[in-house]
Amino acid sequence: NYNVIVISPRNYFLFTPLLPSCTTGTVEHRSIMEPIRNFLRHKKAAVKYYEADATKIDYEKKVVYINDDSEIKGATSATEVPFDMLVVGVGAENATFGIPGVKEHGCFLKEVNDAQKIRKRIMDCVETATFKDQTPEEVRRLLHMVVVGGGPTGVEFAGELQDFFENDLRKWIPEITNNFHVTLVEALPSVLPMFSKQLIDYTEQTFKEETIDIRTKTMVKNVTETYIEAEHTDAQGNKVMERIPYGLLVWATGNAVRPVVKDLMNQIPAQKDSRRGLAVNEYLVVKGTDNVWAVGDCAVANYAPTAQVASQEGSFLARLFNQMAKTESIEQELAVLSEEQASAKKDARDEALAKIKELQKRLRRTKTMGPFEYSHQGSLAYIGSEKAVADISWLTGNLATGGQLTYFFWRSAYLSMCFSTRNRILVCMDWLKTQIFGRDVSREKPSPSDQTTHASRHSCGRDAARALLSTTHYIFRASVGPFPRPLLDLVPGNLVAD
Amino acid sequence: NYNVIVISPRNYFLFTPLLPSCTTGTVEHRSIMEPIRNFLRHKKAAVKYYEADATKIDYEKKVVYINDDSEIKGATSATEVPFDMLVVGVGAENATFGIPGVKEHGCFLKEVNDAQKIRKRIMDCVETATFKDQTPEEVRRLLHMVVVGGGPTGVEFAGELQDFFENDLRKWIPEITNNFHVTLVEALPSVLPMFSKQLIDYTEQTFKEETIDIRTKTMVKNVTETYIEAEHTDAQGNKVMERIPYGLLVWATGNAVRPVVKDLMNQIPAQKDSRRGLAVNEYLVVKGTDNVWAVGDCAVANYAPTAQVASQEGSFLARLFNQMAKTESIEQELAVLSEEQASAKKDARDEALAKIKELQKRLRRTKTMGPFEYSHQGSLAYIGSEKAVADISWLTGNLATGGQLTYFFWRSAYLSMCFSTRNRILVCMDWLKTQIFGRDVSREKPSPSDQTTHASRHSCGRDAARALLSTTHYIFRASVGPFPRPLLDLVPGNLVAD
Repeated sequence: NYNVIVISPRNYFLFTPLLPSCTTGTVEHRSIMEPIRNFLRHKKAAVKYYEADATKIDYEKKVVYINDDSEIKGATSATEVPFDMLVVGVGAENATFGIPGVKEHGCFLKEVNDAQKIRKRIMDCVETATFKDQTPEEVRRLLHMVVVGGGPTGVEFAGELQDFFENDLRKWIPEITNNFHVTLVEALPSVLPMFSKQLIDYTEQTFKEETIDIRTKTMVKNVTETYIEAEHTDAQGNKVMERIPYGLLVWATGNAVRPVVKDLMNQIPAQKDSRRGLAVNEYLVVKGTDNVWAVGDCAVANYAPTAQVASQEGSFLARLFNQMAKTESIEQELAVLSEEQASAKKDARDEALAKIKELQKRLRRTKTMGPFEYSHQGSLAYIGSEKAVADISWLTGNLATGGQLTYFFWRSAYLSMCFSTRNRILVCMDWLKTQIFGRDVSREKPSPSDQTTHASRHSCGRDAARALLSTTHYIFRASVGPFPRPLLDLVPGNLVAD
Repeated sequence: NYNVIVISPRNYFLFTPLLPSCTTGTVEHRSIMEPIRNFLRHKKAAVKYYEADATKIDYEKKVVYINDDSEIKGATSATEVPFDMLVVGVGAENATFGIPGVKEHGCFLKEVNDAQKIRKRIMDCVETATFKDQTPEEVRRLLHMVVVGGGPTGVEFAGELQDFFENDLRKWIPEITNNFHVTLVEALPSVLPMFSKQLIDYTEQTFKEETIDIRTKTMVKNVTETYIEAEHTDAQGNKVMERIPYGLLVWATGNAVRPVVKDLMNQIPAQKDSRRGLAVNEYLVVKGTDNVWAVGDCAVANYAPTAQVASQEGSFLARLFNQMAKTESIEQELAVLSEEQASAKKDARDEALAKIKELQKRLRRTKTMGPFEYSHQGSLAYIGSEKAVADISWLTGNLATGGQLTYFFWRSAYLSMCFSTRNRILVCMDWLKTQIFGRDVSREKPSPSDQTTHASRHSCGRDAARALLSTTHYIFRASVGPFPRPLLDLVPGNLVAD
């Protein structure tokens, strides 16, 4: 029913909830990547994929400008893709709040590259700390790992990192035992603000046992190559500036609007007052348009920017487009029947009228699709040393649990959410591998480019379909030929949900 | 008996024979990496490891200058390491024969980075070829994969690449089926010159069936971003220049001496006439010195620069150093006994004399260690579509076999040569994974730095301990304290052989 074109600079889907595990090698990054082509192959319909950045969307002209930003370019490396209907799911980028030095010296945690960069840097810090004649002060600095942002990403990364140290690093490189230290910095008064009070306390208690420092009410003001300047508000409300030397800085604080989305917003008068992304109505239609939809972190629909929301939005859009296609085909059939009955004889006419009645009934049913409603399933976070916390929506209430059992729940929940059986098996194998052999302390050669080049294009975040949707446009062109079956199970939510 | 210091810019050993498999994801690169620390942990002795480049060896001063060349640097990032005895095993770098454009546009295949870069580029070529509105000519160019060098590395890579296309790429991305093409370019009249004539024919026949083009007697003269200029000598001896457009160029032609080795050679008058590396005597002592040894590709001892040679040289040096330690301790004991017997009474004196006799016998046995003798076990190469060729030394003759059975032999031989049980299991799991799920066609984000920054530091090659030895210095300092047991099972050959 549709000609579908998918545009994304990454030719794979990334299951971001397990990305913090990739930073230490608990899970290998390729185990949570599923090539877009693996989904396309099972579609009989005309789905095209282009590996490209969407650099600009021209709403008036109904055109998306795309650019092959990769190393190898052909004679054609920038072109335009016309659309009839457009779904924007490009996600968000990392918020740095204009704090100087973050992009230059910090690591984000949103893409595969980010996780690999962190993995290399952890080992780089360790190797540099054990370099000949390093001063004790430098050793302490290099082994101080600072995580900024007390959301699930920051907390899970801190937990994974401490695990890596406890289970592996101190075994292989005992010299660093006394100096390796993880600190979590958060501007708000507590970590994991979306969780129940008791789970926040449990997390803080567990971190204490794991010797991870939590510094709440601490706002980073400036980042240099070797230290962070932060303002701490103490119990009396006094503000104290402090200087925190660090070896590794991971920045996991929040989302900012991508330039391509900002530009699109500027073209639509109704988006004038929107700040955090594309304002959408209850059917996820971008306000002020009738042929553009938005899902995930780039859409503003009064929900938290989480994977759960994005994934449900994707599923909803898939159903919506299928309904629209059905509606259209019924209406066409009705038009034909209506012509027929006008010129038909008595019997044939009655038959046609009965058919019309039946079709109109079906049309009503089809057309009455309700608006998007988010159903919150709960929140999950791993907090290190094989413990997790979970706030789960349970019947009409809420179930708050934390500990080792919750950790197994966390594992099975994430496993079931993986994009494919292949991913599930690979993740299980990785967990087993880590259990048996420990994590790999090899440091791949550094790729200096990872340092800054990509930083500006990445964003921080967590949670499943956010990555799935980020930097990906789904473009639907109205049908130009008859296709065997609805294409819309392509819509990402479906991939996640089914 | 020794204080051992290991210096290498990579904190892991890489099993290079399986590196061609990593370029397509048949084997994941981390499955053939074993952290140096995993070996050190099992030693009770004082073995120190520094992750650093050895930038210069000062032979007179007995000092190695080392430099932390990684992204994260401490206050101390360059320092010196004094030595009493030095083992140089830095390997070689890639020979480009001064051909313009090779370093800028080609990919080598020696390090993990190289394999990853090739893996990314293959998919980059495919994605760019399927970009919107690409011209047919560009599509053909982008999907033309050129391998220069008909040695085992080049042949194995060509085979792996064709496998990747046949088993996976054409399934997932059918659009490229008619244009994907692999060409192997070799300056000599045949590929695999170290193999028997019948195996060369078999390889050429198999490549023909796999539709891999072999262009022998073709010398590359110039490389640009999009094409290669090569001179082909035809059957009549006429030389014809041709222009070969390409998407991916892999350069696997031979070895060149590393600058640090060249510099060391310049400091030793006896090395004046050596061209291809450090000339060594039959005990692997660098000629013109008495405290420097060399093994692997940086040593010239009349053997081919292969892993087999390097690995046996490593084993030999391990034994040699252990013998030297034993000799020293016996001589010390003898000196003590000699003093004792001079002042001892009759009975005690007889006893001492008997002991001395016994010790002198042992000393003779110890001292009569023969020189290094290379024992050739055979040559192996994978040639694609689950076939391999093998020339195996068998009793007094030679066994030449090719085909599917040889492929299983190839697999089991390489598996048994892996550095650890962990590596063996991981490689098996990877093979199984590839069998079940096929290879992953995801393209990780490009790291532009891989493009040129590292090229100059890498070299091309194949075969086990070559990588193990490349860019790694083993420095032995004379004993400064009593250590529980000989340290020398650290020497790399041992790691490979036992």
